[in-house]
Amino acid sequence: MIRFALFGAGFIGQVHGANIAACPRTKLQYVFDVNAEAAHKLAGRFGAKVAGSVEEVFAADDVDAVLIASSTNTHADLLSAAIKARKPVYCEKPIDMDLARVKAVVQEAHDNPVPIMMGFSRRFDPNHRALRQTVQAGEVGVVEMLHLVCRSSAPPPLAYIKVSGGQFRDQTIHMFDLLCWVAGQAPVEVYATGASMMDPAITEAGDVDTSMLILKFADGALCHIDNSRHTGYGYDERIEVFGSEGLVESRRKPIRDVAIYKGDKVIEDGMYAGWFERMEPSFLLAIDAFAAALEGETGIDYPTLQDGLRAQMIAEAAVASLKQGKPVQIEYWQPG
Amino acid sequence: MIRFALFGAGFIGQVHGANIAACPRTKLQYVFDVNAEAAHKLAGRFGAKVAGSVEEVFAADDVDAVLIASSTNTHADLLSAAIKARKPVYCEKPIDMDLARVKAVVQEAHDNPVPIMMGFSRRFDPNHRALRQTVQAGEVGVVEMLHLVCRSSAPPPLAYIKVSGGQFRDQTIHMFDLLCWVAGQAPVEVYATGASMMDPAITEAGDVDTSMLILKFADGALCHIDNSRHTGYGYDERIEVFGSEGLVESRRKPIRDVAIYKGDKVIEDGMYAGWFERMEPSFLLAIDAFAAALEGETGIDYPTLQDGLRAQMIAEAAVASLKQGKPVQIEYWQPG
Amino acid sequence: MIRFALFGAGFIGQVHGANIAACPRTKLQYVFDVNAEAAHKLAGRFGAKVAGSVEEVFAADDVDAVLIASSTNTHADLLSAAIKARKPVYCEKPIDMDLARVKAVVQEAHDNPVPIMMGFSRRFDPNHRALRQTVQAGEVGVVEMLHLVCRSSAPPPLAYIKVSGGQFRDQTIHMFDLLCWVAGQAPVEVYATGASMMDPAITEAGDVDTSMLILKFADGALCHIDNSRHTGYGYDERIEVFGSEGLVESRRKPIRDVAIYKGDKVIEDGMYAGWFERMEPSFLLAIDAFAAALEGETGIDYPTLQDGLRAQMIAEAAVASLKQGKPVQIEYWQPG
Amino acid sequence: MIRFALFGAGFIGQVHGANIAACPRTKLQYVFDVNAEAAHKLAGRFGAKVAGSVEEVFAADDVDAVLIASSTNTHADLLSAAIKARKPVYCEKPIDMDLARVKAVVQEAHDNPVPIMMGFSRRFDPNHRALRQTVQAGEVGVVEMLHLVCRSSAPPPLAYIKVSGGQFRDQTIHMFDLLCWVAGQAPVEVYATGASMMDPAITEAGDVDTSMLILKFADGALCHIDNSRHTGYGYDERIEVFGSEGLVESRRKPIRDVAIYKGDKVIEDGMYAGWFERMEPSFLLAIDAFAAALEGETGIDYPTLQDGLRAQMIAEAAVASLKQGKPVQIEYWQPG
Repeated sequence: MIRFALFGAGFIGQVHGANIAACPRTKLQYVFDVNAEAAHKLAGRFGAKVAGSVEEVFAADDVDAVLIASSTNTHADLLSAAIKARKPVYCEKPIDMDLARVKAVVQEAHDNPVPIMMGFSRRFDPNHRALRQTVQAGEVGVVEMLHLVCRSSAPPPLAYIKVSGGQFRDQTIHMFDLLCWVAGQAPVEVYATGASMMDPAITEAGDVDTSMLILKFADGALCHIDNSRHTGYGYDERIEVFGSEGLVESRRKPIRDVAIYKGDKVIEDGMYAGWFERMEPSFLLAIDAFAAALEGETGIDYPTLQDGLRAQMIAEAAVASLKQGKPVQIEYWQPG
Repeated sequence: MIRFALFGAGFIGQVHGANIAACPRTKLQYVFDVNAEAAHKLAGRFGAKVAGSVEEVFAADDVDAVLIASSTNTHADLLSAAIKARKPVYCEKPIDMDLARVKAVVQEAHDNPVPIMMGFSRRFDPNHRALRQTVQAGEVGVVEMLHLVCRSSAPPPLAYIKVSGGQFRDQTIHMFDLLCWVAGQAPVEVYATGASMMDPAITEAGDVDTSMLILKFADGALCHIDNSRHTGYGYDERIEVFGSEGLVESRRKPIRDVAIYKGDKVIEDGMYAGWFERMEPSFLLAIDAFAAALEGETGIDYPTLQDGLRAQMIAEAAVASLKQGKPVQIEYWQPG
Repeated sequence: MIRFALFGAGFIGQVHGANIAACPRTKLQYVFDVNAEAAHKLAGRFGAKVAGSVEEVFAADDVDAVLIASSTNTHADLLSAAIKARKPVYCEKPIDMDLARVKAVVQEAHDNPVPIMMGFSRRFDPNHRALRQTVQAGEVGVVEMLHLVCRSSAPPPLAYIKVSGGQFRDQTIHMFDLLCWVAGQAPVEVYATGASMMDPAITEAGDVDTSMLILKFADGALCHIDNSRHTGYGYDERIEVFGSEGLVESRRKPIRDVAIYKGDKVIEDGMYAGWFERMEPSFLLAIDAFAAALEGETGIDYPTLQDGLRAQMIAEAAVASLKQGKPVQIEYWQPG
Repeated sequence: MIRFALFGAGFIGQVHGANIAACPRTKLQYVFDVNAEAAHKLAGRFGAKVAGSVEEVFAADDVDAVLIASSTNTHADLLSAAIKARKPVYCEKPIDMDLARVKAVVQEAHDNPVPIMMGFSRRFDPNHRALRQTVQAGEVGVVEMLHLVCRSSAPPPLAYIKVSGGQFRDQTIHMFDLLCWVAGQAPVEVYATGASMMDPAITEAGDVDTSMLILKFADGALCHIDNSRHTGYGYDERIEVFGSEGLVESRRKPIRDVAIYKGDKVIEDGMYAGWFERMEPSFLLAIDAFAAALEGETGIDYPTLQDGLRAQMIAEAAVASLKQGKPVQIEYWQPG
């Protein structure tokens, strides 16, 4: 039984808190939030204790691991504190918006390794996992092309977009992690282009809401990603892998399996309303997988801190390509 | 090259005429119809000759086979004439409405065999054929249950219904042939029930427009058929075979493969408007198969005159069951 | 917050116990089982108390409702005790195997009404609910035909089959409830037929494992049900409603949405392994719905004790039809 | 009835010849091929005359239109001859491999207009047409992203690839026409990248077999195309249009609608074996549409000579982008 201390009792903190309570492998031991009321409410719901400070959490001897779901600018410090306290960490993405700070934390973790899982919970979506297993088993042969589609049903608030680092760092980053995980290798070059089709304010904020990228792998394989900040039909996320011997796809997931036949049409249930409704089950699966790894189960390929850095460096290159209007080589920094 | 004489230049005669002309194995040599104008029009379109009489057709030395697509009450006489003239026949169903006359023709064909194919063209539908091949290859194990759905998009005119012999003899008869062909055996008992849900005039005409049947095989396997004379969504014909090791289905066939995602729905293209639009390609495939068999190709399981009789006897038992309100044993008469 | 006492800590009792604990509207207060160890284990997992006797439960003042998941022969007595104690009940099906006892309890509940929900949890399956809503909203017009498919992936142990009351009372009963609920009316006649295709021991036990039924409604509408105790492809449950203006279907539910294209085939994920894997989410939804009704929410159409009796009387008629080999009128007893 | 003279009796000439014979609006009057035997064989099959020379065709007074299906290097001269003879032309793509020659012919046609249809027969595929109609009707709102997939099941012979002008001019050109036709506008910029994943000989020939392109429209909309010269699963061609209010897709087309459920898998029929099997019906529809336009029917948006030039100029820009490794502006030359 892994006893978790949770940092952050906002929306995603509440999700993690409930999952830690529900997962048979884990227990919600502490909640900390700068908003003490939110911390008390969440802790109360699941019989957890409220921590008065960050220090209290790391000093406690009934904490086996921490989950960082607080605001982005606190991630690096909490990661650093956890590394020093030798506590395993489940950390929401991103590591930090400042790449120098990211590298410092990755270096620190490299020098004093503790298990750190980045919250790329999409890796635990059953559809995506089955797709990856098919690819890794060689069932479609050598990977030649990948397609990833990531379309939110509605944009986040403009205020959020302005501080989000832009579409690639905020939204596409999940796809960057997925493509490396599925392909079993990291791309070497990226071409990114996009526009703001939805809202001129997004352009004014220096961002795009509609974008396409082509990424190249060293062996010539190609990957295409398309992103949108809105759709007229719910949340749409898919992966297609084209190999030398076949194709595998993680398809759109319908809400229900109900169809009406009327006139010359068939009307089926469509997509989940938003990314959270679609991806909700993978959050619990992610917690369970990390806990299983901490309990010593082998073969669990959870996303590491270095995976988080890798995805972020692809995002940096994509941002550069968008600005320069041409393909950009991706540089992967490694801790030394 | 099989040279065909065609009896009947009505709707279904025109379909057969065009297919005989288009099929590389066959040639439309003569057309006969009591409506000479219709015969001339059809013959002219494909460079065929118009026969002045039935006798002229059977006397001609440039006729290799005949296709009977004239009105039902002429089938038995034309079959008899063809048997006497030693001409292979493709005959539209049914053989005749009078079972005594049917038996007489079957006996005559038994005594003087010529190749006779009944126009159960659904056997040549590519979906149904692939389903049967799967069943016959044992891929789903021992057949335990079959389902056949046969729903017309709109009823024929009431005048036709009145002389059609009723839903089982007119519509379900195709399913009776299909189920024997797919299962590789004939049922021994039938329970039929139904109602007129659409139009009270159909009840007054002594018929039903909505019906369900359960047929039993000697080994305990069960078959369900449902029939309707109308739908709100086009023509719906399907077969499902449930075996001890799996299931195979010949699914609904959509008009096109186009889908619109909008709101919380997916709108796909639906069914073909009517049975003819859905089944049209199988008519040419049926002609081609019969011609191939006449040319000596082996392994072509075209529906025979005896298959036509078998389907008709199942229909008779179904009619009896409907009247009696209880299951009825099916009697299969054999020529001796 | 509805505080539940749970009778029965076997497989289905554990499912209900976990759901009562997880549902925000309910709390697991007591567990009782003749197997005290099982009761302690289940209670301990969710912080509930163990009751020493049935009487203790009904005497307790911190119990708002009871859930009966103990063995079938205890249902009637526990229902009776709950009625006397004025406690709402969620009762697993069936009420009792003895129809006289069933009627006595229904009469008692009629005379001293408390909310009683029968555990027909399939009504809470999201697919089936959406189908019913479509039908009730008139989107497919007047209901003319229904199809229900209920095929278990593997048979229960023969020992269970022998005391189960047979396929119709044990398995098909869920379909009998669903069809009344979906159609908004109860059938008046049933024809049932079947065989043991799987295992001769089932025949010897006087039961069938493969069966088909046709049920008739007063307005002429027809319903077909097919049942199997095994499949080669997982659990298969579907409903199709054919109306005068269209068709709606609650389709098979696939495990995942992943497809492999290879050669001339597409290989998709298939069905859930068993009925429980398929129906698991509906158990929590059922508890939640009953709790909502107890909290005063209106418009919740949970299955009542009388619905349980209705399904059972259809099953009795089906058993009679199977024995007699002909259609049987269904008699609906009403408490007076 | 439009009387056609056909140039070219090779594979694609035979397809067109049979379709001209089968289409009720058209008649195959003459066949010309430098291989006289091939011309005789094709003409004989459909009762057409064999022309002794190109001049004979253009001098004949029983020719209403010509179809150019001869080798690519003859297209420009035959187009020029047809323009001079005032004969409508259906011309297989491309116009010519030499852009200067292409411009000269387009200028000539501009100065002396006759109806000229380029053989982009995919426009007549029923799936693609329905998709375009949906887009043009505004059902998905403003077009924001398009995806086109074009994957051949097997590469053409290397000898053909060497003279084909490369993947973009030979294969992707169909997608260039489709995307302009569907979007209702032409792209302004293209980025193309690719590799030879299949066969190093293709790299040596200066070509790619696996490629991805991103095209931009003036309003910011983006289009992605992926191409492959081989697949492990038949021919794969799809279009997806993502608009501000929804999505429409012209999906993969399965061979049949048959599915086997076995174990935990569903095995469905896959894709057509090759592009021709998949696209065959659109050839007849293309001939019929052109004939209808010649007969005066309005609203038929057949691909014109200028559309052929447009697609070719996009291909030229794509080739330039591939070589330069960066996005290239597309220049559209117009006859003056």
